[in-house]
Amino acid sequence: MSSIESVLETADSNTDAALERLFALLRMPSISTDPAYHSDCVATADWLVAELSSLGFDASRRDTPGKPMVVAHGGPQDGPHVLFYGHYDVQPADPLNLWKSDPFDPQIEERDGAKVIRARGAADDKGQLMTFVEACRAWIETSGALPLRVTILFEGEEESHSPSLVPFLKENAEELTADIALICDTGMWDTQTPSICTMLRGMVAEEIIIRAADRDLHSGGYGGPAANPIRVLSHILASLHDDQGRVTLEGFYDGVREVPGELAQQWESLGFDAEEFLGKVGLSVPAGEQGIPALHQIWARPTCEFNGILGGYTGDGFKTVLPAEARAKISCRLVWDQDPLAIREALRARVHHLLPADCEVEFIPHGADRASVMAIDNPAFEAARQALADEWPKEAVYTGGGGSIPIAGHFKQVLGLDSMLIGFGQDDDAIHSPNEKYDLNSFTGGTRSWVRVMAALAK
Amino acid sequence: MSSIESVLETADSNTDAALERLFALLRMPSISTDPAYHSDCVATADWLVAELSSLGFDASRRDTPGKPMVVAHGGPQDGPHVLFYGHYDVQPADPLNLWKSDPFDPQIEERDGAKVIRARGAADDKGQLMTFVEACRAWIETSGALPLRVTILFEGEEESHSPSLVPFLKENAEELTADIALICDTGMWDTQTPSICTMLRGMVAEEIIIRAADRDLHSGGYGGPAANPIRVLSHILASLHDDQGRVTLEGFYDGVREVPGELAQQWESLGFDAEEFLGKVGLSVPAGEQGIPALHQIWARPTCEFNGILGGYTGDGFKTVLPAEARAKISCRLVWDQDPLAIREALRARVHHLLPADCEVEFIPHGADRASVMAIDNPAFEAARQALADEWPKEAVYTGGGGSIPIAGHFKQVLGLDSMLIGFGQDDDAIHSPNEKYDLNSFTGGTRSWVRVMAALAK
Repeated sequence: MSSIESVLETADSNTDAALERLFALLRMPSISTDPAYHSDCVATADWLVAELSSLGFDASRRDTPGKPMVVAHGGPQDGPHVLFYGHYDVQPADPLNLWKSDPFDPQIEERDGAKVIRARGAADDKGQLMTFVEACRAWIETSGALPLRVTILFEGEEESHSPSLVPFLKENAEELTADIALICDTGMWDTQTPSICTMLRGMVAEEIIIRAADRDLHSGGYGGPAANPIRVLSHILASLHDDQGRVTLEGFYDGVREVPGELAQQWESLGFDAEEFLGKVGLSVPAGEQGIPALHQIWARPTCEFNGILGGYTGDGFKTVLPAEARAKISCRLVWDQDPLAIREALRARVHHLLPADCEVEFIPHGADRASVMAIDNPAFEAARQALADEWPKEAVYTGGGGSIPIAGHFKQVLGLDSMLIGFGQDDDAIHSPNEKYDLNSFTGGTRSWVRVMAALAK
Repeated sequence: MSSIESVLETADSNTDAALERLFALLRMPSISTDPAYHSDCVATADWLVAELSSLGFDASRRDTPGKPMVVAHGGPQDGPHVLFYGHYDVQPADPLNLWKSDPFDPQIEERDGAKVIRARGAADDKGQLMTFVEACRAWIETSGALPLRVTILFEGEEESHSPSLVPFLKENAEELTADIALICDTGMWDTQTPSICTMLRGMVAEEIIIRAADRDLHSGGYGGPAANPIRVLSHILASLHDDQGRVTLEGFYDGVREVPGELAQQWESLGFDAEEFLGKVGLSVPAGEQGIPALHQIWARPTCEFNGILGGYTGDGFKTVLPAEARAKISCRLVWDQDPLAIREALRARVHHLLPADCEVEFIPHGADRASVMAIDNPAFEAARQALADEWPKEAVYTGGGGSIPIAGHFKQVLGLDSMLIGFGQDDDAIHSPNEKYDLNSFTGGTRSWVRVMAALAK
C-alpha cells in the first residue's frame, strides 16, 4: 500500500497543474451536435492524443464519418486489462445569457464553502475523463508505469446520439476488448458516498396507431354508430395496468428477479427519501407498483409508460370531430432478464385482442434493449468498491439506474464486456444547463479514486 | 282544395320567372365571413326587402353590429301565425379552380337526367328560402292575399356563427313571436320522401386537463414512482363506457325516453341501411350501444365521445418523457330531456373520483345545450306532414337529426317556439363545396310544398 500512498501524494501535488490541463481542455468548444464546431472537436481529439502520448500511451486519433475517436493503449501487455471510456464532446451552451461567465472560459468558484469548476463540460464529461488521465499520470510519474493494462476510448459524439460508436466498436472489437470496462460518466450517491452503478434498465418502445373511419367524421352525423379511435385507444391503454399498478401483459414479469438480499440491504442503507425525491418535482406519493419501495420501482422494477398521445382536435376551443385515428407512444422500462421482443409481442397481442370491428392498428417499433445487469460476483466489482470506500467518508455502494446508458449495452453486446459505471458527478452539477459545474472535490477525489481502483484491479 | 290547385298552377306557370329571380339573388356574393363582401351582404338584404315589399309585405332591413336582418310581415292580422326563417349569406366559394363555372354565375345543368341549379348558395340557403317566397307570390297572385299570417326572418350571418342572432331575437321577441317557426335549411330524406325534422340532439362539451408533476420528467429517472397523466386520463376515459357501449356516468340516462311506437315505425319505414351509411366512410358495424339500431343511435340516443386527446411527445420518433399534463376534449350528444348541466357535474364527479394522489384536474366548459324535441302532438305537425305527403311520391316522415341546428334552439329558448324543419335539399347538394347545386325539382317541388303547407297551417 505504500506504493498507492506515494501515487496519491503525486496526484495531490499535481492538482494545480492538473487543473491547468483540464482548463485547457474545457476551453475547447467541442460541441458535437453543431457542425460549426467540427474543427473544434477534431482539435480536442488531437489535444487528448497529444496528452496521452506525452504520458507514454500509444495514442491515436481515429477518424469516423462523424467526430474522431481517441484510442490509447498503455501499461503491461499481460495481466488484468481495463477499457476506460469517456467522451470529450459537450452540449451546446445556450442560453448564453444565463451563464455567469463565458461557458468556455472555466472559472473556479466558491459555492457553499466548497470550490467548484464552472464551465460547459466540467462535469459532462471532460472533468470526469481527466480524473482517469490524471490518475494514470500519477502512476506513471511515481512508479514509471501503469499498474495494469489500460485501453482508453474517448468518444466525440455522446451528446449527439453516438452514430459512429457501434460501427467503430465492431470494426475494432479485438483491439478494444478488455476484461472489464470502466465508464466515467455518472455520479456519486451523494458528496460523501461513492457508487458503482451495476444495473441499468432496458427498454422496449412502440407506437400504436388506431384507425377507424377513412376520414374525420362529424359527431352530429355519426356520433353513436361510428367507432371512435380515441375511445379504443384509451380502452387499450387502461387495460395495461391493474389496480395494484402491475402491468397486465401476458408474460410481462418473466425474467424479473428479486433484488438479492445483500444488494437490497445496501440500497436500504442509502436512506433514500422518496418523499424528498418526488417533492422536488411536485409529487409526493410513489405511483408505481403498490408495496414496492420507490427506489426499487426505479432501479429494479419494470414499467409500462405512456410517453405521448394524440388524436382528434387539440387546438383552442372545441370541434365535434370523431377522428379517423389516434396514436400513442408506449415504452416499457425493463429489468433483469426481461425479453424486450417477447414484451413487444405481448403488447401487440393485447392491442389485437381489444381491437373492435372496423378498427385497424399500425405498429411502429422504436427500439428494444435488454436491461444491463452487471455480474457483480466478478471479484473486480468488490475490489473496486473497497478501493472507493478507502477514499471517501462513506462506504461505496452498488446502485441501480432507472434509465439506460447506451454505452454499457454496446460494450456488453459488441465486446461482451461488463461495465463498472464509476463517476464523481453530483446531482447539482447542472449538466446540459447553464453554469454547469464540477466540484473540485470530485476532480481531486475522482483522480485519487482511480489511483486506488487501478491498484485494486491490478491484483 | 280548388283554391290550392289554382295556387299550384300559378306557381308552376311562374317557374321561369322564379328562376330568374333566384338567379339574380345567386349572383350576389353575400359571403358573410369575409369582410370584403360586406357591402354585397347589405345589397342582398336590400334586394330581399325590395322583393318582399313588391309582394305587399311590410319588409325592412334591420341593421345589426354584423350583417343586416330582413324582417317582413304579411297576411291577415289574426289566425294562425308562422315565423319563416332562412339565411341569405353563403359560404366562401374557394377553391375556385374546382368549380365548373363561376360560382356566382348560376347555371342550369343536366345531371343524371335531371336538371340542377349550380351556384354557391343554390341549396344553402338561397334556393331554399326562395321556395317560400315564391309560394307566397303564388298565393298572393292567385287569391290576392296570403292564407295565414306570416313573419319572415332572413339572417345574413348563418355561415359565420350568427353572432347577432340571439341579441336580435331578444330585442325583437314580441315582433317575431308566432305560433310556430318554419326553418327551411335542411333536406329531404331522399328525392321521393319529404321530411320534417322534429328531434335534434343537444350537447354538453368539456375539456379536462390532468396535471401531475410540475414539469415533464424523464422516464428513466422517474418511470415507476411518478404519476403519469396520460395513464390517469386513459383510465378516466375508459371508465366512461361499459362493455355494452352504454355511458356509465351516474344519472346519464335520466330524461332519455323511448322513441314512441308510431315514430319508431315511421323511422323503420325509411329503410335506413346502416351498412351502406357506414360503408361510405369505411366502416361497417354500428359501434354504439348494443341492441340499438344505428338510426336510433344517431337520432334518439345520447353519446359520450372523445373529440381530441393530447399529451407528452407526439412528434416523429420517440422521447421517453413522462408528461406533466394530458388533456382530452369530451362531448356528450344529448336527447329528450337530458340535463346538460347535471351531466357535466356527473362527468366532473367521475374525474374527481378516479383522480389519484398528486394529480390535479382543470375543467374547461365548452357549451351546454339541451336537445330540441318538437311537440309533434301539436296538430300543425301532422297538418304539414299531410301537406308534404300530398306533393311528393312518398309519405312524408318525421326524422331526427344527430347534430344541433342552433336556430331551432334559439327559437325555443328566446321565443318559446317549436320549429318545423322542412327543407328540400338532397344529400348530394355539395353545400359548402365546389359545384354546389340545388335540384330544379327541389326548387319547384319546394315551392309547391310551401303552397300546400301554408294552406294546411291556415286551417
